[in-house]
Amino acid sequence: MGRDLTALFDPRSVAVVGASDDPAKYGHAVAAQALRAPDRRPVHLVNRRGGTVLGRTAATSLSSIGEPVELVVISVPGAGFEAAVDDALACGAKAIVAITAGFAEAGPAGVARQRAIADRVRAAGAVLVGPNCLGIADNTTELYLASDRFAPGSVALLSQSGNLALELQLRGEPHALGFSRFVSLGNQADVTLVDLVEDCARHEATTAIAVYAEDFGDGRAFAAAAAAAGKPVVLLTAGRGSASARSAQSHTGALTTSADVVAAACRDAGVELVRTPREMTVALAALASRPRTRGRRTAVLTDGGGHGAIAADAAEDAGLDVPELGGPTQDGLRAVLWEQSSVGNPVDLAGMGEQRPLSYADTARELLAADEVDAVLMTGYFGGYAASEGGLGGGPSGGSVLADGEARAAKEIVAHLAATPKPLVLQSMYPRSPSCRVLAEAGVPVFAATEDAARALAAMTGRAAADVAGIPSLPPPAAPLEDPGYHGVRALLGATGVPFPAAREVTDEAGVLAAAAEFDGPYVLKALHLLHKSDAGGVALRLADRDALLAAYREMQDRLGAPAHSVEAMADLSDGVELIVGVNQDPRFGPVAMVGLGGVLTETLRDVAFALAPVPAARAEALLRGLRSAALLDGVRGRPAVDVAAAAAVIERITTVAAAHPEIAELEVNPLLVRPDGALALDARAVLH
Amino acid sequence: MGRDLTALFDPRSVAVVGASDDPAKYGHAVAAQALRAPDRRPVHLVNRRGGTVLGRTAATSLSSIGEPVELVVISVPGAGFEAAVDDALACGAKAIVAITAGFAEAGPAGVARQRAIADRVRAAGAVLVGPNCLGIADNTTELYLASDRFAPGSVALLSQSGNLALELQLRGEPHALGFSRFVSLGNQADVTLVDLVEDCARHEATTAIAVYAEDFGDGRAFAAAAAAAGKPVVLLTAGRGSASARSAQSHTGALTTSADVVAAACRDAGVELVRTPREMTVALAALASRPRTRGRRTAVLTDGGGHGAIAADAAEDAGLDVPELGGPTQDGLRAVLWEQSSVGNPVDLAGMGEQRPLSYADTARELLAADEVDAVLMTGYFGGYAASEGGLGGGPSGGSVLADGEARAAKEIVAHLAATPKPLVLQSMYPRSPSCRVLAEAGVPVFAATEDAARALAAMTGRAAADVAGIPSLPPPAAPLEDPGYHGVRALLGATGVPFPAAREVTDEAGVLAAAAEFDGPYVLKALHLLHKSDAGGVALRLADRDALLAAYREMQDRLGAPAHSVEAMADLSDGVELIVGVNQDPRFGPVAMVGLGGVLTETLRDVAFALAPVPAARAEALLRGLRSAALLDGVRGRPAVDVAAAAAVIERITTVAAAHPEIAELEVNPLLVRPDGALALDARAVLH
Repeated sequence: MGRDLTALFDPRSVAVVGASDDPAKYGHAVAAQALRAPDRRPVHLVNRRGGTVLGRTAATSLSSIGEPVELVVISVPGAGFEAAVDDALACGAKAIVAITAGFAEAGPAGVARQRAIADRVRAAGAVLVGPNCLGIADNTTELYLASDRFAPGSVALLSQSGNLALELQLRGEPHALGFSRFVSLGNQADVTLVDLVEDCARHEATTAIAVYAEDFGDGRAFAAAAAAAGKPVVLLTAGRGSASARSAQSHTGALTTSADVVAAACRDAGVELVRTPREMTVALAALASRPRTRGRRTAVLTDGGGHGAIAADAAEDAGLDVPELGGPTQDGLRAVLWEQSSVGNPVDLAGMGEQRPLSYADTARELLAADEVDAVLMTGYFGGYAASEGGLGGGPSGGSVLADGEARAAKEIVAHLAATPKPLVLQSMYPRSPSCRVLAEAGVPVFAATEDAARALAAMTGRAAADVAGIPSLPPPAAPLEDPGYHGVRALLGATGVPFPAAREVTDEAGVLAAAAEFDGPYVLKALHLLHKSDAGGVALRLADRDALLAAYREMQDRLGAPAHSVEAMADLSDGVELIVGVNQDPRFGPVAMVGLGGVLTETLRDVAFALAPVPAARAEALLRGLRSAALLDGVRGRPAVDVAAAAAVIERITTVAAAHPEIAELEVNPLLVRPDGALALDARAVLH
Repeated sequence: MGRDLTALFDPRSVAVVGASDDPAKYGHAVAAQALRAPDRRPVHLVNRRGGTVLGRTAATSLSSIGEPVELVVISVPGAGFEAAVDDALACGAKAIVAITAGFAEAGPAGVARQRAIADRVRAAGAVLVGPNCLGIADNTTELYLASDRFAPGSVALLSQSGNLALELQLRGEPHALGFSRFVSLGNQADVTLVDLVEDCARHEATTAIAVYAEDFGDGRAFAAAAAAAGKPVVLLTAGRGSASARSAQSHTGALTTSADVVAAACRDAGVELVRTPREMTVALAALASRPRTRGRRTAVLTDGGGHGAIAADAAEDAGLDVPELGGPTQDGLRAVLWEQSSVGNPVDLAGMGEQRPLSYADTARELLAADEVDAVLMTGYFGGYAASEGGLGGGPSGGSVLADGEARAAKEIVAHLAATPKPLVLQSMYPRSPSCRVLAEAGVPVFAATEDAARALAAMTGRAAADVAGIPSLPPPAAPLEDPGYHGVRALLGATGVPFPAAREVTDEAGVLAAAAEFDGPYVLKALHLLHKSDAGGVALRLADRDALLAAYREMQDRLGAPAHSVEAMADLSDGVELIVGVNQDPRFGPVAMVGLGGVLTETLRDVAFALAPVPAARAEALLRGLRSAALLDGVRGRPAVDVAAAAAVIERITTVAAAHPEIAELEVNPLLVRPDGALALDARAVLH
């Protein structure tokens, strides 16, 4: 059910410890904000020197207030922090917002110090945000405990960066995008990103959750909470490039997660992953307006060929489809448009809008009504017919007949949208014009930039809730693997149904002969307990018979002196495709599976896909079919298609084993041979922590 | 030297035929604009009804003006267009701007009609822009012959879309980006995009040329003109996606060029290719400020970890490098920063800017002075310390000490930039703040969005002029290929030094035996004059000796009945890599080469590169080394590297042959085998027009 954060977001009383009249001190800004709603709840200012702060008498200590305080903001120098926490708990505080810095971000001693504080807070049944945070705000309860004001609205903003939160606040303004809550995450010593996502999911006044995070804490729990939130979660994070990854690594030691894994977790959790504050604002403006819908078939509606072509490209770049419209839909469009209009998609009014602005609305209606259209991207001059202030905003000059027609068209479009769940997004050269405002106020996302409109539509049509794969639960831990050697790993995987060729571990020539008697050739001989056995010449393939096997054994034994070898039945590689399947323990996301096509070329191209483990077979099949080189699975140049379902079933088994064995840092089956008639693991290895 | 367009851009007198008092007519808007500079040159308004237009007496015809007119704008209904052109030429017009529509865009009859008009205009020694255009403007000569006003500046805008031109004009405003000239391209019946690029290249007041084009006309000439322009050319075009390509195809018939070819031509011409009006504005804002520099090693300078990490990722996404800074540079930074600052890159002031705004300037100075830094991307709060109007623009509130320090920092940064050719671009939450304005007025590109700042820097550091490969000239046409059969093509290519294995065309068993006597096996047998001979089983490989060859010949002859066969020496494929080399005649760009790695997988992945033919060997090698799977050329898993230089030399020969044979629609060598010791063409084919 998650932690109860009522005392944090809707406390009955508040105290600001470290409140100050000195504008250079953070305690000044927080105190000033806290006093914005003095009638909502008692707000106490505490300054150890007493006197007045912001024209009010300051208490010299929490205890001198003489009544319990439910939420305490602590903005004091580091040396006095622990004492302030103790005072707060003694005063009955159930929530602490810790501004004070100098803890985990300053080194190992700070980590221990903040851990001790968090333990004390939890023991007292309280919660703590921070330390090293910039405060919180809840516009729905008039709680203002951060230095910046956040315009009211329905987005909960959880941020590890104060400046980025400020930028998002500024960027939201033109889109009337406001905030239900703001939480500066700080070091997450007690209350974590996961707790906050869970609480904001329950918060009725919040319709979307915006997160900027560098450190996800328990990334898997974050992804699971986001998947279960029942409302859009938009994540802004860094670490895709080498520089930001290097920077994060220097901040957090080795605890970095590859951007591929973050992207995979977001994909499966239904989290909208964005790369910049601007993109986040675009996604929020889109997602705050309507529920997501499923299809991506987009009709581009324009009043000029140039804008239509640019928007069609932008839509496809954003992952939308812009298919040619079918005959009946084209006929319907022709009935409302004139001869020179294009009706194929892009649908281009070609001047008709200038003559009859209502043709925008008629065309939108036809497109929204067509079964083959999931969404409409309207682009170009619309908004420009109404009088206004000029600039990339208002509109040029006011032909009043056209302006009236345009305004009526805007209202009709709003009415058409009320009758359908399909979204319409508008790019306009005049986004602040009266007609565009009519649309914006009715919840239509309006943008000045074509690529923003396309990105917004991609967010809105991303996937219905049912399309989100979800974050898999971890199986209960199994008894730890004791023999991480090759045959130990084979046994572990084989016991769950992962098929391997017949094999026998041998340590002498008698063993080799016994193996040859046990199963038929051709044989494979592998030297065991060597790192990179393949590179070292420790694998011999296609040994036709017992004699060839024995000769190879002697030669390899002489050359490498391996303590043991494996004799195996050589699989039939013809018509097969080699896959690679690996599972690594990520410090943030737990077991993470990687699947890809093997072989020199695909490894060179790094054509792989990721998912949190365990990976159900259906999901594994989707990952394989999504690879760039997936065409190889269907057979090319006359080769038969391979049994992808069999490979997917094996991937489910391998990833489930790995997920049940947290002691295995890396588990890899490479190659996993897939043939038209099934899948076979040809080699495997494990690395323990 | 290009056509003389003086009469077009700086005429001694102007007449607007079709000038009108009716605001719904385009002749009204053009006439009103033309009269904005009545003292510069005589402006005559012509309306066949006479009377007054815009308060002036209108002439009833051009001839009734009674004096020669150098430039005539024609905005009359289509039926009267030819007569108006004749009148204009009779009046001595040397330039015509044809607004009237209904020509090539309306079908084949219109094509013929506009061609006849263009012939007449050229015969009279005049030039014509349009028809179906929206006019022209030249702010440097006070010539205003379009309905929209374009703010004065140094960008020449050549556009096939009026609305997109208008959007670019609106978008330029916040960046103080103005226009030297505007030309609506229309149907380019006489004056073409190429003519205009050449003229704008000579135009001193123009520092950058912005083009929106859907139809390039002679694309190769456009690319060559852009490469020779000596100033940045920024191209916005559509056609990357299937919808815009489909739309273009329906407008222009089959004359569409793949986006890959356009991108390759732009790459080699040094044209900055952009995808949206917003991106075009960003590129122009960058390129209008400083000459391009070469290196891409970027230092990110920030005042907050979040902005730094996001900007580093955005920089790498834009193709910049963000390398870790070396020890001496880090030491230099430490000397001006405080302990908690990060100096690795991103360089993070970490709060020092709030204490001492000059630290922004000190840090910028150190970074600009470092040899290992080519450019600086500054990002975050800078601009926010100065008092201002708030919003994503001005700035929050004015602490005057900090504001003063910030303003001084801005001035110091300007001074540091004056001493170096290296660029600095700023992303600020407060781009319109006083401090940001100081930088902007000194030519520093300032943006609100991180990705815009990164894109701008990528444009500025794209390449120095010397790095642009250039557009190759076409060789003089050779005698046409008469035998497009396999051996004819082999002979054509072989004569220029493309190496093939020994081969002999045979039509009977005697020929087969003669071939076997002529050169040693193993042999390859190919059935000739069959389409897709490989798929049809018309190729037999690895025929060990004469008997195997003869047997294969009999079997193939029975099965396929091909009129002729080719017997060839089988090449040694071991350690070789198969390439594919093709040259197609593009309707716009002429011969275009495609090179790629062959084989099932690379063909599946479509890992190919394009360049206009002929392709010099050095360029061909760069194309091959730029392929995603290029690692295969260097040898992987113990294989030897192949002779890429030999392959490149062969590609030069193949593409030169194709360029000299315009009658060959497609020429393909596939595979071109590259081995450690050379390259060998194993098959070839040609398709004539």
